[in-house]
Amino acid sequence: MTVFSKIIAGEIPSYKVAEDENYYAFLDINPLAAGHTLVVPKKETDYIFDLSDEDLSGLMVFAKKVAHALIKAYPAPKIGISVIGLDVPHVHVHLVPLQDNTTINFAKEKLKLSAAEFQEIAENIANNFHL
Amino acid sequence: MTVFSKIIAGEIPSYKVAEDENYYAFLDINPLAAGHTLVVPKKETDYIFDLSDEDLSGLMVFAKKVAHALIKAYPAPKIGISVIGLDVPHVHVHLVPLQDNTTINFAKEKLKLSAAEFQEIAENIANNFHL
Repeated sequence: MTVFSKIIAGEIPSYKVAEDENYYAFLDINPLAAGHTLVVPKKETDYIFDLSDEDLSGLMVFAKKVAHALIKAYPAPKIGISVIGLDVPHVHVHLVPLQDNTTINFAKEKLKLSAAEFQEIAENIANNFHL
Repeated sequence: MTVFSKIIAGEIPSYKVAEDENYYAFLDINPLAAGHTLVVPKKETDYIFDLSDEDLSGLMVFAKKVAHALIKAYPAPKIGISVIGLDVPHVHVHLVPLQDNTTINFAKEKLKLSAAEFQEIAENIANNFHL
């Protein structure tokens, strides 16, 4: 069971942003920017391009809804996408409000936020989310 | 007309990797790794999350086919995805063979390849591509 499956099951706490039957979105706890969110399928799959066409499409359409909420809560020119996945063997799409081309650089220092700040960010996004 | 529309129309040359009715894939000429490919919809849209559910799904399913060809031609643990799009106002999905978490960092120095090297890379990927 991956750490993301434990998060989805509620065994590990997370700052939940949105959820439907098949997908779950929550804040990255090492954010590159305020609002940095991870979108994951509830079904465990290691590599995004091993998903069926249907599951890949469903994941991206769900991510689009999350991105629409995110850009309302944290205005930015665009919401960027990154999928790397060499760390946790469970598909996860990073959604990050972009300020410029350097926003998504996983080598840079991450934001340090308090639990209260994470909670407020998650609520701001969740309040703008519509299935 | 964006630079990518000019590439698709053949007005600007590109190292083409794959194409179907709606999507086009070609080598990024500032590659982060050998095989770094851009996948674009033929229809001009600035922001990926402005695509309809159908067009977003079609784009990702086409990108999956390109990624399968890419990983055969340039073996890597995974093919990573990045969508930033603050430069060219025409949706483009970066597909990059990942060696580690630092492979996708647009701030780092890009590979310098000759026209012959680009041509060979494009052919290697195209030869492994199946619609």
